[in-house]
Amino acid sequence: MTDITMIRAAADRLRGHARRTPLLNSPFVDQIAGRRVFIKPECLQHTGSFKYRGGRSAVSALDAATRARGVIAFSSGNHAQGVALAAREFGVPAIIIMPADAPQMKIDNTRALGAEVVLYDRAGGESREALGDKLTAERGLTLIKPYDEPQVIAGQGTTGLEIAEDANALGIENADVLVCCGGGGLTSGIALALEADAPTLRPRPVEPQGFDDVKRSLASGQIETNNAQSGNICDAILTPAPGQITFPILQRLCGPGLAVSEEECLRAMAIAWARLKVVAEPGGAAALAAALFHGDQIKGDTVIVTISGGNVDAGVFQTALSKYGDDV
Amino acid sequence: MTDITMIRAAADRLRGHARRTPLLNSPFVDQIAGRRVFIKPECLQHTGSFKYRGGRSAVSALDAATRARGVIAFSSGNHAQGVALAAREFGVPAIIIMPADAPQMKIDNTRALGAEVVLYDRAGGESREALGDKLTAERGLTLIKPYDEPQVIAGQGTTGLEIAEDANALGIENADVLVCCGGGGLTSGIALALEADAPTLRPRPVEPQGFDDVKRSLASGQIETNNAQSGNICDAILTPAPGQITFPILQRLCGPGLAVSEEECLRAMAIAWARLKVVAEPGGAAALAAALFHGDQIKGDTVIVTISGGNVDAGVFQTALSKYGDDV
Repeated sequence: MTDITMIRAAADRLRGHARRTPLLNSPFVDQIAGRRVFIKPECLQHTGSFKYRGGRSAVSALDAATRARGVIAFSSGNHAQGVALAAREFGVPAIIIMPADAPQMKIDNTRALGAEVVLYDRAGGESREALGDKLTAERGLTLIKPYDEPQVIAGQGTTGLEIAEDANALGIENADVLVCCGGGGLTSGIALALEADAPTLRPRPVEPQGFDDVKRSLASGQIETNNAQSGNICDAILTPAPGQITFPILQRLCGPGLAVSEEECLRAMAIAWARLKVVAEPGGAAALAAALFHGDQIKGDTVIVTISGGNVDAGVFQTALSKYGDDV
Repeated sequence: MTDITMIRAAADRLRGHARRTPLLNSPFVDQIAGRRVFIKPECLQHTGSFKYRGGRSAVSALDAATRARGVIAFSSGNHAQGVALAAREFGVPAIIIMPADAPQMKIDNTRALGAEVVLYDRAGGESREALGDKLTAERGLTLIKPYDEPQVIAGQGTTGLEIAEDANALGIENADVLVCCGGGGLTSGIALALEADAPTLRPRPVEPQGFDDVKRSLASGQIETNNAQSGNICDAILTPAPGQITFPILQRLCGPGLAVSEEECLRAMAIAWARLKVVAEPGGAAALAAALFHGDQIKGDTVIVTISGGNVDAGVFQTALSKYGDDV
């Protein structure tokens, strides 16, 4: 299980590789939110998201002989690119299994980072697990799971070490830390880091309305599942349920979850564009949307939020700007 | 005249106020440019541009009694917002004189930072200088010029100190540093900082085609003037001629200027959006455009460029994405 010692060890392995992202702020954002808002822009991380931290942490934690045989991941998004870049940096093969109907942009971006992309026919009933097992057995690959994997959580947790360091330097106490949440890898990693280094800060997951499995699981005390697995622009954080490893951490350390609408995410993207000059993808804008539009559910005069922006569709971004870009 | 001692003193005054921006990079950008590209994203600076550095440097350099009477600036853009925020931080009045037909967004953004915006009727022949002289005399204000002012150049030069520090840490030598250039405040400040701290790096101004007064002035050895003063999307860097103070610095320290087209700036904006996750305004993307599309005029295997993004029109940004967002 991931603990703070593993997160600090991951930070040592990531030093000089992962970007040390700042905390951004803007008086315009503060005004809309009605409190001070500090933003951790992991969109500025390599590959555009914190997923590089987890990928690099996991790949760098392997022994050299195992690593040399290569790694494999199931992902059509940011995890794929994080693992691909980490593997390329070590000069080892990365095989990424994606559905054949994944957006061409994501396939191209992953291939451009040196990965071998293997497509499977989701509609035709082909099992990606069977395909993965076959490739893994043939080549001796190591599977890097996207969130339910201790070294991935440790890598994402380095984000929390940096938040804690900056919050302490700014004298921030008793504030909520809102985290865009899919399977809970980033949220649980940040939660463990804050517990150790900034224990008055309270991590809280933010999810899309209708896909708030973590929020409902925290409320009920057991793992709850989403009915749908697609049909929301926040594709980066749509997951069926919290992980077996992440959920106990979330349950022990997190405050209540929040849920935001697609329109709120689009508007938060436009505000991040205008006021912070950073590019968020819809799911990566969920926590900012919660800070901006659900302030009644947040305590204190200061809030911290994460942003990510690994794979943003140009059409979706234009929609955000055409709806909200002139009225941020 | 600005020298390295003034720049280091400005850096001391800015510490804890201006953001220490990183150098970003992306393998996708490198591939298009055909060499390594490092980007100094001053769009992440307070108010979205390096102009805050110059504004804060100038306001903080005033003696307390003079500063308390307030400052005045002629600007409808980033300089206005940099001066406004710096004055607000010191709790002193800022009067910003803008043409009445300036974009409402810029007027609103400047007022929101606490400045008193005074509009003049450009078409009606009203003289902004006469208006400024009247206000200055009545209230004992200090004029903060946008570039031809030693303490403003010193503030912009702190950008160069950071570029030098990071370039030295990365082992970068003999590289061009491309700077988006209007009146030459940022370019001359960076040039002085590089001369002191990274003397093998060569600063080079980048301007819009048809508004390349600095490029032509460097070529002819005397101050040349643009025929037009508007009619280009790179409004942030359209100036009539290099400054009396900036030009001798540019002449002594800069390599040849480069000029880029509006379409190249739009495409560079889309690439910065997709690959660096930062928001550039057209003029703030000029140096990146030169690195991407005029590589034949650049020496060496590495280039450094500045980006700014203080005031981006949503419509212009949508145009950049609709033309180039799917094909970066």
